Amino acid sequence: MSKYKTLGFIGGDRRQLYVISGLAEDGYNISVFGIDEGLGATDKIRLCSDVCDVVSSSDAIVLPVPYSSVLCGDNINTPLSRGEIRFAELSSAIDTYGTGLILAGRADERLRALECCGALKVIDYMEREELAVLNAIPTAEGAIKLAMNELPVTIHGSECLVTGFGRVSKILCRALYGLGAKVTVSVRKKGDLAYIKAFGYEGADITKPLEAPKRYDIIFNTVPHLIIDRGMLGALRSDTLVIDLASKPGGVDFEAAKELGRNVIWALSLPGKTAPMTAGNIIRDTINNILSEQER
Amino acid sequence: MSKYKTLGFIGGDRRQLYVISGLAEDGYNISVFGIDEGLGATDKIRLCSDVCDVVSSSDAIVLPVPYSSVLCGDNINTPLSRGEIRFAELSSAIDTYGTGLILAGRADERLRALECCGALKVIDYMEREELAVLNAIPTAEGAIKLAMNELPVTIHGSECLVTGFGRVSKILCRALYGLGAKVTVSVRKKGDLAYIKAFGYEGADITKPLEAPKRYDIIFNTVPHLIIDRGMLGALRSDTLVIDLASKPGGVDFEAAKELGRNVIWALSLPGKTAPMTAGNIIRDTINNILSEQER
Amino acid sequence: MSKYKTLGFIGGDRRQLYVISGLAEDGYNISVFGIDEGLGATDKIRLCSDVCDVVSSSDAIVLPVPYSSVLCGDNINTPLSRGEIRFAELSSAIDTYGTGLILAGRADERLRALECCGALKVIDYMEREELAVLNAIPTAEGAIKLAMNELPVTIHGSECLVTGFGRVSKILCRALYGLGAKVTVSVRKKGDLAYIKAFGYEGADITKPLEAPKRYDIIFNTVPHLIIDRGMLGALRSDTLVIDLASKPGGVDFEAAKELGRNVIWALSLPGKTAPMTAGNIIRDTINNILSEQER
Amino acid sequence: MSKYKTLGFIGGDRRQLYVISGLAEDGYNISVFGIDEGLGATDKIRLCSDVCDVVSSSDAIVLPVPYSSVLCGDNINTPLSRGEIRFAELSSAIDTYGTGLILAGRADERLRALECCGALKVIDYMEREELAVLNAIPTAEGAIKLAMNELPVTIHGSECLVTGFGRVSKILCRALYGLGAKVTVSVRKKGDLAYIKAFGYEGADITKPLEAPKRYDIIFNTVPHLIIDRGMLGALRSDTLVIDLASKPGGVDFEAAKELGRNVIWALSLPGKTAPMTAGNIIRDTINNILSEQER
Repeated sequence: MSKYKTLGFIGGDRRQLYVISGLAEDGYNISVFGIDEGLGATDKIRLCSDVCDVVSSSDAIVLPVPYSSVLCGDNINTPLSRGEIRFAELSSAIDTYGTGLILAGRADERLRALECCGALKVIDYMEREELAVLNAIPTAEGAIKLAMNELPVTIHGSECLVTGFGRVSKILCRALYGLGAKVTVSVRKKGDLAYIKAFGYEGADITKPLEAPKRYDIIFNTVPHLIIDRGMLGALRSDTLVIDLASKPGGVDFEAAKELGRNVIWALSLPGKTAPMTAGNIIRDTINNILSEQER
Repeated sequence: MSKYKTLGFIGGDRRQLYVISGLAEDGYNISVFGIDEGLGATDKIRLCSDVCDVVSSSDAIVLPVPYSSVLCGDNINTPLSRGEIRFAELSSAIDTYGTGLILAGRADERLRALECCGALKVIDYMEREELAVLNAIPTAEGAIKLAMNELPVTIHGSECLVTGFGRVSKILCRALYGLGAKVTVSVRKKGDLAYIKAFGYEGADITKPLEAPKRYDIIFNTVPHLIIDRGMLGALRSDTLVIDLASKPGGVDFEAAKELGRNVIWALSLPGKTAPMTAGNIIRDTINNILSEQER
Repeated sequence: MSKYKTLGFIGGDRRQLYVISGLAEDGYNISVFGIDEGLGATDKIRLCSDVCDVVSSSDAIVLPVPYSSVLCGDNINTPLSRGEIRFAELSSAIDTYGTGLILAGRADERLRALECCGALKVIDYMEREELAVLNAIPTAEGAIKLAMNELPVTIHGSECLVTGFGRVSKILCRALYGLGAKVTVSVRKKGDLAYIKAFGYEGADITKPLEAPKRYDIIFNTVPHLIIDRGMLGALRSDTLVIDLASKPGGVDFEAAKELGRNVIWALSLPGKTAPMTAGNIIRDTINNILSEQER
Repeated sequence: MSKYKTLGFIGGDRRQLYVISGLAEDGYNISVFGIDEGLGATDKIRLCSDVCDVVSSSDAIVLPVPYSSVLCGDNINTPLSRGEIRFAELSSAIDTYGTGLILAGRADERLRALECCGALKVIDYMEREELAVLNAIPTAEGAIKLAMNELPVTIHGSECLVTGFGRVSKILCRALYGLGAKVTVSVRKKGDLAYIKAFGYEGADITKPLEAPKRYDIIFNTVPHLIIDRGMLGALRSDTLVIDLASKPGGVDFEAAKELGRNVIWALSLPGKTAPMTAGNIIRDTINNILSEQER
C-alpha cells in the first residue's frame, strides 16, 4: 500500500467502475463523484455530493480516459452521470484544497497547469508503456471481433494484412496467427522484417505497392499516417474489409474509400468498448504501479 | 470433373449461394429453384421455374442443410424463397424423371425412401467426416465471437472450461489457446487427458465435481448429454457465461439455469450463421469429394 | 493409495530408477532386484538379494520395458545389473509365492502364461492409451533433437514432411510448428486431411507421389509399413534427412536408401534414450492409474 | 544486382561456404582465398592463389565473422585453411589495389583504419539489426538443442527461466513455448512485463530474488552482466541446468557455480556451430541488403 490512502474519482465510463472496485479491493478508500450508475457505496467506497467533497477528502485524484474531450467542451468526461462537471469546478477545488497527485488519461496543457495551482504532480497514465502494451490486447481482440462480426468467412484460413509492427500490431498478429489466419505484415525497417520472419508471418515492404492485393480478406492498419491510399484501395478486392486502428489522422483515405465503395471501419477506443473490465483492470494495475513508484 | 455435369439445386440458405457459385467455378452447370435472392443467371447457372425443370435437367440433385426441418413441416427448406416447395413435388419429380444422386444435409427416412423411387442413391453430406471436422472451425469461431460479444473481459487471460474432446472441442481449444486463454478440458478417458496435457491445456475429470468452479469466465459445452447440471450451475460464479454447442438435447439444465439466473446461450448451427461463405466452401469441397468418389 | 502396498521391481534401465523413486514418493514400499546402479536403499526402498526375496515380499511385480527381448534371450532385461536373471527364476518364484499383479512392458505369451501359475493378472502397461499418447512427447522431442544434431539448418524455416497422423505425428507436428517449421502431413483419410488443415499444416495424399519432393529438408515417417520406398527416396534431395519413427518393420526401404546414399535414421525407443526421467514419470503415472483401477 | 559484380572472400568457417555458394547463386562472381575445404571452382567461383589475387580481382572484400580474433593473433580467421594469412598481407594488398567496400564480422579499429588506406568503406555486417534478429533463431535453437542433449526430461512440461527480453530471449521464449515448456521471463521494465504477459509467459522482477527457485529445470541467461550470482546459484536445485547465452563477460558467476557444483554451460557463437547453413544464409541475405543499399 502506498502513502496515498484515499483516492478521489471524478467522472469516467464503465471502465472506471472496474478501476474503482478493483482499487477498493486493493485496500484504498475511494471517494467518487460524477458516476451515477453501476456503483454502490461500501465501507471502502463513498459516493460524494460534489467535486469539493471528493477533492477535500482525497490524497490523490483520478480522472478518466480521456479526462475531457472535444465532445465534452469545458467539461470533465462523465458519460455515466446525469449532470455535468465544469473543468473550472475541478480546478477551483484543487486550488482550494490542494492534492498530492492527479492521475488522468490524455492530460493536456490545461490539466498540467494545475501543477502550479494546488496539485503537486499531474501524471498521464495513458502514457505509461505497460498500459499501452496491455491495452493492445483488448484493441487486438476488439479488431478481431469486428472482423468476425463483419465478414462471411472465418478468421481461420483468411488472408490478413497488418500494416506496421508496433504494440498493437505485434499482439494482433499473434492473435490472428493463433486463430489460424495467414498473416502478412508490411513494414519499413529490415530489423522488423527479421522479427516478422522469425515469428512465422510473411513480411512486405510498406513503401512499395502490395503484391497480389486481391488476395487479402482483411487489412488492419496500425500506422497513424496515410498508408491505405486511393491507389491501394483501388487495387483491393471490393469485399476486402479494412479496419483502421490508428489514432489521430488515421491511415486510410476515407474519402477515396467512400467513392470506391470500400468497406472501411475506423475503430477507435476499442479497449473500453470491447472489454471494459479488462481495460479497467489494466488501468487499475497501472495506477498501482504509479502510486508505488511515488514512494521513496 | 466427375460424370455428373449438371447439378440441380433446390432451396437453401446463404451458404448455398457460395456452394452454387463455387461449384459453377469448378466447372459444373447448375440449375436452381427455390432461391430468389442473391443469385443471378450466368453461363453456368440457370434459374429454373419449378422443381421439375431442375430435376429433368440435372444429373444429380443437391438439397440444403437441413434439407427439411420441423419448422418446414412438409416443405423443403427454402429460407431465401418467397414461395414454398412441398416435399411431394420433389418426390414426384424424381419419380418421373429419375436422378443419379441426391446429396442432402440431414437426410431422413423419407428422403432415403427415394432410393426406391427414381433416385439411384441418397447421400447425406453432413455425415462426412471431413465436413464434420472442417465445420468445427466456424463453430469454434462462432462460439468465440459470441463470448467476445457477451463478456466484459478479453478471451486473452480468461479462464475457459471446455467439456468433451471431440471435433469441436479440439479445434475450439486450439483457437482459445491461440488467443491466450487459460484452457481447461474435462473428459472421461485417460487417453484424452494425455492429449490434453500434451497440447498444453489443463485436464479435468468430467465425472467429478469441478475444482474451483468459481474461477471460470466461460464454459463451452460440447457434450450432447446433461453435463452442466443444477449442481454445477449453482457452483459457478453468477457472471460466468455458459455456451452450449451440443446438438439435440444439449448439455445444460436450462431450467435450472433460468431459475439460478445463469447466463446460458444455446448456440446451434453456428457455421451457417457465423461464416456462411466458409461454411458454403466446406460443403462445396465435400460435394466435390463425394462426386469424385462416385466414379470408378 | 491402492491395496497394493509393496511393489517388487526386477530389472530395467534408467527409466526404472525414476519409476521407483517416484512410486516411493507416492507412498509405496519398493523391493528391488536386478538394478545395481543409481539406486540407494531408503526407508521406502529395499535392495533385495534375489528374485525370491522380491516376489515373496511384494503385492505386485513390476517388470521393465521391454521386460525381456530377443537380445536378452531367456533373461529378464537388466541393463543396469552386473548379473543375469533367467526368466525361469522369475516364473518359479511366482509359482512358489504367488503375486496379485504383474505389470510389464511388451508382455508376451510366455509372461501371460504366468496367470495360470501364481499370478492373478498380467497387465502390459505399454498398451495403455495414456502411456502411448504421453510417450509420443519424448518420441517427438527425441526426433527433433536428432534432426537438430544432424542438420546444418534450423528446424525454424525448414520444410518438414510427416507421414501419418497418429499419436506421434499429432504431437510431433505441433512441436515442429511451434518451432517455426513448415509442416506438411501426408495421410490417406479425408477426415485426417480436414484436421491437418484446421491445425494449420499442409496436407498431402499419402497414396500419391509427393509434389515437389525436393523441397523437403526432413521427412519423419510414423507409419509402420513401407511408405518411403525406392521411388520416393530417389526423388528426394540428396541431403534430405529421413527419420523413421515407426516400429517393427519400419516404413523406409533401407536397402534402397543405402544404395542411393540417402541419410536415413531408424530411431527406435526414443523416450528412454532422450528423456529417461520424463519417460519414467509417464510409466509411474500409468502404474498409479492401473493400480487405482484394480480397486473396487 | 548491385554495382559490385565480383566479391572477394578471404577466410571463414563452414558458414562462409554457404555465403559463397548463395551469393554465387544470386549472380555474383566470387574470388576466394583462405578456404581449402568444401569449396570447388565453378563458372561463378574462382579459387585464388593469394590475397593479392583476391583483392585485385574484386569490387568488394568479404571477411568472416569474426574477421580476426584473439585466438588468431595477427591473422585473419581461416579455420578451413592449412595456411595462415597475416593481417598485414591484407592491408598491403588493399593499399596497393584499393577496394570499394570491406564487409566483415566484428570489425575493429585496426580494420576500420583501412578506410584511410585503400578501402572506401568498412561495414560490420554483424552490427546490422536484421542479422542480429535472425541470428537469434539459430542461437535459440542451439540453446534448446544443448538443453535436450543435457537433460533427462523433455522441454515439454519443463520449467524454464529466461533472463532478459532482448532479441534472443524473445525468440527463445517463443520456441520454448511452442515446444510446451512453462516459460518465466525475468526483466526490469514494466513495459517488458506487459509484453511477457501478453505473449502468455510468466513475468518476474529481475531485480528481486527468484520466487520458488527450486522449480526451474533450466535457466537461460541472455543478459550480459552478472545476473545468476552466487546467491541465486545456491538457491537452485542441484540438477538445474544453466545455459549462459550472453556474450562478453557472461551473466553467470562461473566460479561460484564451480564451487557449488552447478551445471553451467557458457554457449557462445551458437549460430555457426548449430546451423552453419542457416547462419550462412542469414549473412548472405544481409550482404545482399547492404550491397543494394550502396547504390543510389
